[in-house]
Amino acid sequence: MKTYEVCVVGIGAVGAEIVRLLKRRKFPLKRLIILARAERREVIDGEPYTVRPAAPDAFEGMDFAFFAGTEGAKGASKTLGWEAVKRGCVVIDNGDDFRMDPRVPLVVPEINPEALRQHRGFIANPNCSTIIAMMVLAPLHRVAAIRRFVACTYQAVSGTGSAAIRELEQQVRAWAAGRPMTVEAYPRPIAFNVIPKIGSPVEDEPGWTTEEVKMRRETRKILGDPSIRVSATTARVPVFNGHSEALHVEFARPMSARRAREILLAAPGVTVADDLANNVFPVPIDASGQDKVLVGRIREDPGVEHGLALFVAGDNVWKGAAQNAIQIAEKLIAGA
Amino acid sequence: MKTYEVCVVGIGAVGAEIVRLLKRRKFPLKRLIILARAERREVIDGEPYTVRPAAPDAFEGMDFAFFAGTEGAKGASKTLGWEAVKRGCVVIDNGDDFRMDPRVPLVVPEINPEALRQHRGFIANPNCSTIIAMMVLAPLHRVAAIRRFVACTYQAVSGTGSAAIRELEQQVRAWAAGRPMTVEAYPRPIAFNVIPKIGSPVEDEPGWTTEEVKMRRETRKILGDPSIRVSATTARVPVFNGHSEALHVEFARPMSARRAREILLAAPGVTVADDLANNVFPVPIDASGQDKVLVGRIREDPGVEHGLALFVAGDNVWKGAAQNAIQIAEKLIAGA
Repeated sequence: MKTYEVCVVGIGAVGAEIVRLLKRRKFPLKRLIILARAERREVIDGEPYTVRPAAPDAFEGMDFAFFAGTEGAKGASKTLGWEAVKRGCVVIDNGDDFRMDPRVPLVVPEINPEALRQHRGFIANPNCSTIIAMMVLAPLHRVAAIRRFVACTYQAVSGTGSAAIRELEQQVRAWAAGRPMTVEAYPRPIAFNVIPKIGSPVEDEPGWTTEEVKMRRETRKILGDPSIRVSATTARVPVFNGHSEALHVEFARPMSARRAREILLAAPGVTVADDLANNVFPVPIDASGQDKVLVGRIREDPGVEHGLALFVAGDNVWKGAAQNAIQIAEKLIAGA
Repeated sequence: MKTYEVCVVGIGAVGAEIVRLLKRRKFPLKRLIILARAERREVIDGEPYTVRPAAPDAFEGMDFAFFAGTEGAKGASKTLGWEAVKRGCVVIDNGDDFRMDPRVPLVVPEINPEALRQHRGFIANPNCSTIIAMMVLAPLHRVAAIRRFVACTYQAVSGTGSAAIRELEQQVRAWAAGRPMTVEAYPRPIAFNVIPKIGSPVEDEPGWTTEEVKMRRETRKILGDPSIRVSATTARVPVFNGHSEALHVEFARPMSARRAREILLAAPGVTVADDLANNVFPVPIDASGQDKVLVGRIREDPGVEHGLALFVAGDNVWKGAAQNAIQIAEKLIAGA
């Protein structure tokens, strides 16, 4: 079997998970190195890794470079991405700098693997909330054509990175001990709270955040349909890992709950958890550490013609980031 | 000043708060008694109260009876409500047994006080999430006519009652101490989780929960417009107190964000918290212990004609229940 030289750029929450999942998924590794701002030693699951400074030459001889796109590595793909491509390395970027770049395919392997054809060595991983929504919406879209959806998200702190995970943990421990909470990762405490702002304000769309606008732009690019209307409210909740989303969808053609359930039962990477009477529905603690996206609460929505409502939960660090990035590389190896 | 004989039926999370708010709001009390299933002593804010068994005769001579409608008092208004009315007492019921009864006005005093005219002694308090949404939607509806809205809720455990508050507290403490969590109040742990089921399945609307259907039915009754379409997903989040809601609204006529902000700045019982760039937006920890409902994230939604999106947070035990009930009595006293 052919094996590959792989590097991971940035070693925050997503970077560490890429390293873990490469092993877990038995990715055909010849060598795995980590690149970051400064040289140091890093231990992941008891295994020591050498972290080398991220510089253009570091990509010589590499087959794949995963840019984790969070924390210390923010912006690394901007300065180093095309340098890596120049050296014959395929870049898979989890960050948001190139997702809307027309040279760069934006790929969820189960949904639009055809976008990988004739790639130029640089592939973008969509936003975590977008990937999780796409996993259930794309199979339905193919059958009944989505005209619009409203997405309200319940996003976990792991999406912000490891400092935010520690902050929720610290805040809850402080609360339990009767000590004051430290507030740094978010503008307000996240423990026992909901923060309806993810990302930053978008200049040309007053009132909207980058996270909300990404959902619309990326959906259109992934589904190849610029007419789909997307209205999102993205909010952070005190959950460690696993993003949830309430989706209210309007189709061009009829889509019964029964038909939607059939389609989703057959959809790759999706698990249907939908038995309300018996308390079966998607929850983030079940989605966390799962490679599939959970969908439930599937019901016809009489509020709009051909309406359907559903609730999804997915591991934002796995399928929403690290896993999807690795799946892209796997697809390329398999000759998509 | 005329004073009134008042009783509170049921002394869970809402009942206790009715007692507290009657004092806080300086309600003109002649006497305040508590009725519940069994006789006992109850201490609220250091003050002892005699709890008498709830029976028809207990309402003799009473001017107002607040049925708290939670926990031990569930269903009390069904067996005792009209008995109290027969004895000349005005019943204000926080439960959901009579909200859709055509004999019973469903009232948010800032929104539809006219519904109190010619009441028959029995008035219903709407559902907490409905009240909080109505506080901001009704003033906008009057100007531009709502055709449809999608509401996705982020509801606090206090809405379930005191046992659920204790359960979130216990689960978080267990987590901090590395002990297993007890799961009783909800079908799944609520700590660090999201539970997308509130209430129970509705028989004639497959897939929908009672909480979701209430929002549509009660909205139509309060606004007196049976054509309004409402699509709700209601979910519980690990927040102690304060319900939040993402609202995506479609109006019949234009409604700019600027105009909406002006209207809401002038709306009674509403505080506008809307400055995204400076991290000003509604959060439940700010809404808790506030008699006003917070609204922010006000933005035009190009996903639909005359669309507007907003985010609200309100104290579900206060404005969502106890406070609204007391305001109804105050309105009646003032001669609505």
